Amino acid sequence: MLTSALRVGVVGAGAMGFDHIKRLSGTITGAVVSAVIEPDEDRRDIALAHAPEAQGFASVDEAIAAGALDAALIATPGQFHEAGLLTCLQAGLPILCEKPLTKDPESSWRVVEAEIAGGKKLVQVGFMRRFDPEYEQLRELIASGRVGELLMIHAVHRNPSVPDSYDQPMLINDSVVHEFDVGPWLAGGSVTSVEVRHGRRNPNTPAHLKEPILVLMELDNGVLIDVEMNVSVRFGYQVATEAVMADGIARIGQPSGLQVWQNATFSIPEHADFTTRFTQAYDRQVQAWVTAARRFLTGEAAEAVAGPSAWDGYRVAVCCAAGVTALDRSGPVPVELPPVPEFYR
Amino acid sequence: MLTSALRVGVVGAGAMGFDHIKRLSGTITGAVVSAVIEPDEDRRDIALAHAPEAQGFASVDEAIAAGALDAALIATPGQFHEAGLLTCLQAGLPILCEKPLTKDPESSWRVVEAEIAGGKKLVQVGFMRRFDPEYEQLRELIASGRVGELLMIHAVHRNPSVPDSYDQPMLINDSVVHEFDVGPWLAGGSVTSVEVRHGRRNPNTPAHLKEPILVLMELDNGVLIDVEMNVSVRFGYQVATEAVMADGIARIGQPSGLQVWQNATFSIPEHADFTTRFTQAYDRQVQAWVTAARRFLTGEAAEAVAGPSAWDGYRVAVCCAAGVTALDRSGPVPVELPPVPEFYR
Amino acid sequence: MLTSALRVGVVGAGAMGFDHIKRLSGTITGAVVSAVIEPDEDRRDIALAHAPEAQGFASVDEAIAAGALDAALIATPGQFHEAGLLTCLQAGLPILCEKPLTKDPESSWRVVEAEIAGGKKLVQVGFMRRFDPEYEQLRELIASGRVGELLMIHAVHRNPSVPDSYDQPMLINDSVVHEFDVGPWLAGGSVTSVEVRHGRRNPNTPAHLKEPILVLMELDNGVLIDVEMNVSVRFGYQVATEAVMADGIARIGQPSGLQVWQNATFSIPEHADFTTRFTQAYDRQVQAWVTAARRFLTGEAAEAVAGPSAWDGYRVAVCCAAGVTALDRSGPVPVELPPVPEFYR
Amino acid sequence: MLTSALRVGVVGAGAMGFDHIKRLSGTITGAVVSAVIEPDEDRRDIALAHAPEAQGFASVDEAIAAGALDAALIATPGQFHEAGLLTCLQAGLPILCEKPLTKDPESSWRVVEAEIAGGKKLVQVGFMRRFDPEYEQLRELIASGRVGELLMIHAVHRNPSVPDSYDQPMLINDSVVHEFDVGPWLAGGSVTSVEVRHGRRNPNTPAHLKEPILVLMELDNGVLIDVEMNVSVRFGYQVATEAVMADGIARIGQPSGLQVWQNATFSIPEHADFTTRFTQAYDRQVQAWVTAARRFLTGEAAEAVAGPSAWDGYRVAVCCAAGVTALDRSGPVPVELPPVPEFYR
Repeated sequence: MLTSALRVGVVGAGAMGFDHIKRLSGTITGAVVSAVIEPDEDRRDIALAHAPEAQGFASVDEAIAAGALDAALIATPGQFHEAGLLTCLQAGLPILCEKPLTKDPESSWRVVEAEIAGGKKLVQVGFMRRFDPEYEQLRELIASGRVGELLMIHAVHRNPSVPDSYDQPMLINDSVVHEFDVGPWLAGGSVTSVEVRHGRRNPNTPAHLKEPILVLMELDNGVLIDVEMNVSVRFGYQVATEAVMADGIARIGQPSGLQVWQNATFSIPEHADFTTRFTQAYDRQVQAWVTAARRFLTGEAAEAVAGPSAWDGYRVAVCCAAGVTALDRSGPVPVELPPVPEFYR
Repeated sequence: MLTSALRVGVVGAGAMGFDHIKRLSGTITGAVVSAVIEPDEDRRDIALAHAPEAQGFASVDEAIAAGALDAALIATPGQFHEAGLLTCLQAGLPILCEKPLTKDPESSWRVVEAEIAGGKKLVQVGFMRRFDPEYEQLRELIASGRVGELLMIHAVHRNPSVPDSYDQPMLINDSVVHEFDVGPWLAGGSVTSVEVRHGRRNPNTPAHLKEPILVLMELDNGVLIDVEMNVSVRFGYQVATEAVMADGIARIGQPSGLQVWQNATFSIPEHADFTTRFTQAYDRQVQAWVTAARRFLTGEAAEAVAGPSAWDGYRVAVCCAAGVTALDRSGPVPVELPPVPEFYR
Repeated sequence: MLTSALRVGVVGAGAMGFDHIKRLSGTITGAVVSAVIEPDEDRRDIALAHAPEAQGFASVDEAIAAGALDAALIATPGQFHEAGLLTCLQAGLPILCEKPLTKDPESSWRVVEAEIAGGKKLVQVGFMRRFDPEYEQLRELIASGRVGELLMIHAVHRNPSVPDSYDQPMLINDSVVHEFDVGPWLAGGSVTSVEVRHGRRNPNTPAHLKEPILVLMELDNGVLIDVEMNVSVRFGYQVATEAVMADGIARIGQPSGLQVWQNATFSIPEHADFTTRFTQAYDRQVQAWVTAARRFLTGEAAEAVAGPSAWDGYRVAVCCAAGVTALDRSGPVPVELPPVPEFYR
Repeated sequence: MLTSALRVGVVGAGAMGFDHIKRLSGTITGAVVSAVIEPDEDRRDIALAHAPEAQGFASVDEAIAAGALDAALIATPGQFHEAGLLTCLQAGLPILCEKPLTKDPESSWRVVEAEIAGGKKLVQVGFMRRFDPEYEQLRELIASGRVGELLMIHAVHRNPSVPDSYDQPMLINDSVVHEFDVGPWLAGGSVTSVEVRHGRRNPNTPAHLKEPILVLMELDNGVLIDVEMNVSVRFGYQVATEAVMADGIARIGQPSGLQVWQNATFSIPEHADFTTRFTQAYDRQVQAWVTAARRFLTGEAAEAVAGPSAWDGYRVAVCCAAGVTALDRSGPVPVELPPVPEFYR
């Protein structure tokens, strides 16, 4: 039986989980953090201090056994997602799972199968760009046809720097992963190949990385998407997209806000890192999921999902696998997907 | 005794009150609409349909007698504010009162006296611009001195049209009223005179109005503020401010978001009316007030206010009275204020 | 008899005259500097080095007596303009006279009378903003009525600093003087009053000045113009104008060109001083005048003027006199002009 | 012996040649059109009407034999460039040759050999983008290293439509040709491969074309350049470039000028076609060439060139040949160039 607020168990209290706990406690309406599920005791205690109504647990199983949650927000490192997802699916819980769905196409497919077997759409994947107001406006514009058919997309994803733990495949799995979701979502198609081209190596780039790269995606509807992926470009954080349509062009992610003239320069502050660029997208994503999960649990809605599905998560996992292959190969790497299961149509 | 969520009684279920009810129910965390106080039965019923946990009342007295609210959000027409404020102050309730505080300086002064007599800061006035992120950034920049001392402010407030009920004094009391609050808040001073100059009459202007006008405010620190007030400028809604400092210039309220090239034109959608421009400011204002009121009621904070005070409301009422006089007089009309009471320093 | 190139005598080889000599020699087509008229020998010699086909003279009379010029470009300090103008008018020469026409309304009137007496329009005044492409576009937009009638203009004129010789009346006579020409030119009316309001004094302002100021001009068609005049605003040089029309707004003078993202900032270089902002306007002004003067001298055109006339120069002189009075007086100072002489209609 | 103005013979009086004749007659200083060389009598006569001091000729040989020109501006269709170039080189004339240098690498190589044989640099190629102020600023910024090493360039070249005579190879030879010059000029390297990828076909595209395309150029210094080439994008004309450097980003070709708010939209006029975008670049190119040619002819300078050389023209011809091959082939097509001849270093 659902209490008036959705009792959310947050799985993983690292940086991302901690951020979601603060969001659920301080910003989101209709939810309360009822469980913090984290094996590391110190992290768990710090998180609990920000979730006054939550109990701590070391594992998802324990939390479910204690009846401590109505829904789960999974924010562990990606390699642990599959286990958490399968357990929560087994328990019939609505789930918001941080991206990526799982670490590879095979495990993502197992999640898809488990969800289909359960017969209810319970899994939403945390591709939060879909909740960014500008991405929404761009998608609406493309879909409206007011500027004609979409022909090409140019995207850029720029970070000032990355931690030492960031390795070459993470260019794809951690960063371009967003474009594999949001590109087709904007373009209304499915990726058929991925190619990686290399720019001149950035002298700022850590020794074990080779970037920036230009990723080229072909879609089954003919749309070509190019993505500049750049993780050492010092100046700040920028995610921007330009859509080339038959009759004109549209662009999002441009500078906005306070304008200053000083020292013979006009300037607008740009994002220094990712924390500010997508604040609103994260808030709106979690709010949409909380509302959907509540409606599902009260029987008002047949599914608990208000965003990217497990199938979207699987599709992206297949693209990422192709993208990682493409890092070291010349020419396009094909992306082959099974037909969309009836369940997700 | 405070329940976990702040039980808010919304006084007035017209357009503004209805909007606040939806905001408190669907966006704000930590609050619930517990009472809808509205003499008109139809309006009250419509509002109650959006506030599942609220009871309806015809008067503030009844709602207080029933113990139905922890705090009041007053959104009746301005001429009824005084009565609602005095009743709620008497009951010791935290209050968020829509602007203006009251309809004239005398009644605003009575509210100030009543609040001082009660010994607790309970009244916040709904000058929501202070919660707009760009206004906050501009104020921070000015206060920092990074671009030197503030010298002048140019402001524009443009509406596409106004309803028939909008009369000449409302140019001041309904529209410029915001600038009387936010101008000194940005500039760190107090208004000493108000003058009104007239532009060429807009052919779009209704017959009973004469506008646009240029309002000039002098501040006690020497800063000069000019405000273009324009209520028939068809193109849309725009509120923008440019601050002239010793070493440079800063500007807020400029176009942002989706950029489109079509028909040999680059364009950005501009606000069509006021509903979209300050959405975030309204949300942040109410959230800040809810949080402050909860902290006050649990004893964590000594006052229930996180924004403009009753004293700010009084000061603005005095400016508005001068501004209305200035509509029909040439030259500056002096603004005389008593010293800031100790209570508000 | 006109040679194929217009033989221009440049009167005055100070900074402004020197600049015009370089422009006529290196940029303008159809003209050659044939005379440099400058009493100071050193200056004259430096200038002659940039004008390979020119002779030097100490006075206009000598140059005319020597038949050394077809037309005169007067660029002496303003107090010497009257004498040069009257001498050249007497000789029937086409004249481009740097602003201001002369130093006061009385002497400007004498120039107007002399020109009328001669029966030919020979005098063009160097209000070069009329040749700036953006000012031209703004004027065309206003005149077209596509955005409705003009109601108000907001203008800003900002300098980083001024030399020690710059005194308080120069705020009007040297700087606002441009707005007295271009404002009515944009608005299609005539100035009826001038008022000066003071902002907070800029700590950068030299001790003998009091600025920034806000100048208010009323026009006979009801349009109200405000001008921020600011000569110590460090950041750089900016001249911008915003036109408020019945149905919308237009703005010129905004940042353009190379865009750079660096250090968490998006920026566009702004003009550091006046030399770059109006380069194109100066070039186009002189080219238009050279072409008009050639057509006049070959008999193809009845007048030698392709821009602001002596009458415009007189009108502006009257406004400046009122503006200087307004610097020390409160309230509007009336501007009274005789009817436009038939000759200039 | 050089007269004071450079006597320019314009070869070809089609649209481009006619435009240059008007430019040389009405805008450029120090030059006069002395010969119009055009076999079509009607065209020649129309052109002569705009060149008052010119004689007409049917061939370059005749004009040279008549001693009618000091220098030649070649603006015939590309397939006739080689003959004109070789004849003028033979005569030792300074030449400004419209792009492309010639129609293929082999003929361009013959021009290079002829110029080297003559021992003087006489040929400048009309890649006018190098004279656009924003391209100049971008190149200066890149070369300065202030934003770190250049890593990638993203370019777009968009046309609203093309005439029926525009065929598929012209995507490369007429349009991308500019990027083959200006890209390496910005990047300080040489092209080593060209690849063409296809976007979704634009429904506006004429039946015999397949576009838009994305052209990828690799440079020998590692810089990767991508160019969106789009000739049916209805909205207008746009040429823009974004340089990705180690520490930040720079961008040129963005909207500027008059800003208008109307109909709930902020807008800036964009170029409708190519005639306005590069006006200043064409003027500055021809002026620079005239000045250089004069200095060469008077012996002040050793070469008659102030811009892209015949070698640049040859390099671009090789890139174009590779680009045309790449239109129908998957993967990069190598670009092989001989070492830069000593003569051009």
